[in-house]
Amino acid sequence: MAADEIRLKPGERVDDLVINNMKLIQHPDEFCFSLDAVLLAQFASLRAGCEVIDLGAGTGVIGLLLLARGAAAVTGVELNAAMADRACRSATSNGLADRLTMIHGDLRQVKEFLPGGCFELVVANPPYRPVGSGYISPNSRVAMARHEVTANLADVVAAAKYLVKYRGRFAMVHRPERLAEITLAMCAAGLEPKRLQFVYPAAGKKPNMLLIEGVRGARPGIDVLPALIVYTTDGNYSEDIMKFYSQDR
Amino acid sequence: MAADEIRLKPGERVDDLVINNMKLIQHPDEFCFSLDAVLLAQFASLRAGCEVIDLGAGTGVIGLLLLARGAAAVTGVELNAAMADRACRSATSNGLADRLTMIHGDLRQVKEFLPGGCFELVVANPPYRPVGSGYISPNSRVAMARHEVTANLADVVAAAKYLVKYRGRFAMVHRPERLAEITLAMCAAGLEPKRLQFVYPAAGKKPNMLLIEGVRGARPGIDVLPALIVYTTDGNYSEDIMKFYSQDR
Repeated sequence: MAADEIRLKPGERVDDLVINNMKLIQHPDEFCFSLDAVLLAQFASLRAGCEVIDLGAGTGVIGLLLLARGAAAVTGVELNAAMADRACRSATSNGLADRLTMIHGDLRQVKEFLPGGCFELVVANPPYRPVGSGYISPNSRVAMARHEVTANLADVVAAAKYLVKYRGRFAMVHRPERLAEITLAMCAAGLEPKRLQFVYPAAGKKPNMLLIEGVRGARPGIDVLPALIVYTTDGNYSEDIMKFYSQDR
Repeated sequence: MAADEIRLKPGERVDDLVINNMKLIQHPDEFCFSLDAVLLAQFASLRAGCEVIDLGAGTGVIGLLLLARGAAAVTGVELNAAMADRACRSATSNGLADRLTMIHGDLRQVKEFLPGGCFELVVANPPYRPVGSGYISPNSRVAMARHEVTANLADVVAAAKYLVKYRGRFAMVHRPERLAEITLAMCAAGLEPKRLQFVYPAAGKKPNMLLIEGVRGARPGIDVLPALIVYTTDGNYSEDIMKFYSQDR
């Protein structure tokens, strides 16, 4: 589909996802997706044909990438109405409007608009920072995406617990410093952590992201994956990262 | 001190710790120390002059290495009488008998023979595997060191909780697959995980050890350290490992 068929609103731009020639509508004044979303979409265990829900779907990028990986359908829940609308139009632009459904709603009230136990996979790229830590953006919509202003870790895990099928999966990207809190919350919700990967910006550096996946009702025992290194010593993307882009699906 | 001043019993041998010219008495039929112990002794946050306790001290190697790093004194608790005796003689051989005290006792009964809240640092290289997982050595003393036959994770954490000072530290080496259980046990005991490092046998491999340190009474928030890689692609020890041996203290 040519770019001129994408319906843009004032201030919006079209970005190339580089995967499957997909396009994404973003607004530079709002939260724009980054590598975190791409890594989560690659990390989540996805059975072809499964139903996925994305909590705090933002631009919709994770949903688009999971559809490219073979998900049957993705539902996105997003509190910011403009973001939800933009994600809808991105789906349409990529010919995926029938497989990506955006719900403008609050994940803390998910029981009011979605049935429980229906999704095989729940994904979330939630705000990383507790309120009270670090600079909070004066742009309330950016703050909402970065800080736990409207939903915190406990809210995300509670929504995942409600939505996921028995033996279904919950995959999340988050910050390493919150690992203990994440583990406690997931275990308390019966979402036993089963896969974990740390993302290191470069060899010899501390990790700045973690990818974690829990299985509802599973026994303890976690598979910690090889270190994912983002940049080589000469500042280019590593092979691990490049391979995400090297093969269209 | 020359090797001929080391009092050996039948079947025992003397190994060179390579650090500070220290020697260690081991019995090849029993549990012998490995890289795990060296990594834990390097990883633990150690204030010079502090008092340390080693739960399940085995050969005493961790205590010797912590004394070399500047600990004032180390107490080792070991259930295997022959191991405790051997560790005592190793300390004497290295002129450290006054700073390494071995107690032949069961860490599950530590309240009966040690006062609570007296140690600034508690270390443990405990058995890694739950009873019922994998091959159990018919040598009961080796089994005791490898499998949770006589003390399990909960026992070790309970002993650490009892022994450590407020704001003191508990450092442990363990297997990555047990990370969630370790986190739950430490948090429940008020030993908040504050430092974590994964040990990868080589780049691109899954980690086979983790090093974790909790602080009694601390707030949540964990510092995940750079990946520790053991072997280079040509099969030699990495610089990270070699540096432990390159400078005597």
